[in-house]
Amino acid sequence: MISKLIEKIQKTNAPIVVGLDPMLSYIPEHIKAAAFAEFGETLEGAAEAVWQYNKAIVDATYDLIPCVKPQIAMYEQFGIPGMIAFKKTVDYCHEKGLLVIGDVKRGDIGSTSAAYATAHLGSVEVGSSAYVPFGEDFATVNPYLGSDGVKPFLEVCNKENKGIFLLVKTSNPSSGEFQDRLIDGRPLYEWVGEKVAEWGEMSMDGAYSNVGCVVGATYPEMGKILRKIMLKAYILVPGYGAQGGTAEGLKPYFNEDGLGAIVNSSRGIIAAYKQAKYADKFAPENFADASRQAVIDMIEDINGAVFGR
Amino acid sequence: MISKLIEKIQKTNAPIVVGLDPMLSYIPEHIKAAAFAEFGETLEGAAEAVWQYNKAIVDATYDLIPCVKPQIAMYEQFGIPGMIAFKKTVDYCHEKGLLVIGDVKRGDIGSTSAAYATAHLGSVEVGSSAYVPFGEDFATVNPYLGSDGVKPFLEVCNKENKGIFLLVKTSNPSSGEFQDRLIDGRPLYEWVGEKVAEWGEMSMDGAYSNVGCVVGATYPEMGKILRKIMLKAYILVPGYGAQGGTAEGLKPYFNEDGLGAIVNSSRGIIAAYKQAKYADKFAPENFADASRQAVIDMIEDINGAVFGR
Repeated sequence: MISKLIEKIQKTNAPIVVGLDPMLSYIPEHIKAAAFAEFGETLEGAAEAVWQYNKAIVDATYDLIPCVKPQIAMYEQFGIPGMIAFKKTVDYCHEKGLLVIGDVKRGDIGSTSAAYATAHLGSVEVGSSAYVPFGEDFATVNPYLGSDGVKPFLEVCNKENKGIFLLVKTSNPSSGEFQDRLIDGRPLYEWVGEKVAEWGEMSMDGAYSNVGCVVGATYPEMGKILRKIMLKAYILVPGYGAQGGTAEGLKPYFNEDGLGAIVNSSRGIIAAYKQAKYADKFAPENFADASRQAVIDMIEDINGAVFGR
Repeated sequence: MISKLIEKIQKTNAPIVVGLDPMLSYIPEHIKAAAFAEFGETLEGAAEAVWQYNKAIVDATYDLIPCVKPQIAMYEQFGIPGMIAFKKTVDYCHEKGLLVIGDVKRGDIGSTSAAYATAHLGSVEVGSSAYVPFGEDFATVNPYLGSDGVKPFLEVCNKENKGIFLLVKTSNPSSGEFQDRLIDGRPLYEWVGEKVAEWGEMSMDGAYSNVGCVVGATYPEMGKILRKIMLKAYILVPGYGAQGGTAEGLKPYFNEDGLGAIVNSSRGIIAAYKQAKYADKFAPENFADASRQAVIDMIEDINGAVFGR
């Protein structure tokens, strides 16, 4: 699956992913009003607002980007209707030719990890039939439980041609509490990175592995070291923009072939119309156009700073 | 919420939790046949089988136990119908007076962790109304992202009187890959334990904290040390029975007050009818009676070995 992602990145010339993390507070009033008029101020109404919001953003940006990353927590908080909106979003993005990274940060052991892998990347057998539960192309996975948690995902990756991104060094301020602690002179995140490289060998797909990793844009010095530890792992980079990561700081996340990293922006794109920078030009009714402009600006920013193009 | 759990443990004299982790392969043929007859070999059919299986086990055991722990991965793998079966199970267990630990192992940062906390322990506002998305009483949480991931859960715990169990030392063989690595002479799981104790102070509920932890029954020596590091944390103990943890080994997980630990069994209870020990006495049609007997035996085993009663 990573080779498909690379192909799409090269075609769009856009090493970016749009995070579809729809907080209700981001959604323009007219979308919410229409959804609540139809379904009331209910979970169904909220889920409909989320879905219409996503759809408009996808319609306005799909030709520019390789990939989206819905954050499942934002859907899960609306219960069953929210999960339906998640699935609808995944399916719709596929219809529009986008790849989908399910930002689910699952992780358990053995048959439980296998069930999560099935839920998000695989298909489940019921009697003599098989069904795709949620059907993302990639999933984010938490490595704290070790190989027992990761290998069931690798089996599904190999069987179904899918991929994962393992949390190595997250973008948040407190990520250092455990991840930065020194073990035999090296921080934990480097040891996790070593394992990512090792697991990655079990699911190669061309020059890169289906096993990628997450390293926050907020820690470019660490990104530089981690890049070298996991040469064949694609790095999914959160933390650009809203969290303080800069385009200049993204350079070390890429390999010399110009590949190896994909940078996420969520709020910065989907709630662009709320930023001073775009609010003048785009009314809330034109939020999706603001998102399109924000995508164009992000691509330009990253390509300029990282590749000088 | 931990005081409610303690009250129920004392009332039932059963420091145990039944893991509702329904693999299709555990479910007796007659349940599956009835579900498939009604809904076909579909996700809806699988979800119906899961629900009927759970309901029968809950009906046969609810008077003996304080608590159940559905493993959400086993439901998530059946997509939306699976999630509906999860919610139905949570609601039904509440109707029967049981507390529910959502074994969801979620963990993210900031607003995303807050959304997970809302999904599983809180209520979500939609316009002027509020809804309970999944409504468990406790959730398991992964600590790899540090305080940024945990504090949003604590806020919900304090607001809604709920609790969490943070993964400290998991029961699986590879848990040591990261969790056992030495940092300043002490394994990572001890440092996580120290943080659990610290976070726990932020959500006390009587003598114990709403912040509990997970320590596998398979590592009793580590359990002994962790018990002392987190005196006010309830320990949720997986790994008893099927994974090799013994009742004798559970002693160090309890405090001197006879409290402080709750031991999970999943397969050992819900698929008891498949074990040689019970298969002679209980036909597959009587699987729920086998589960009841397995609960009685587990309580006796633990109370005998740990408390000599």
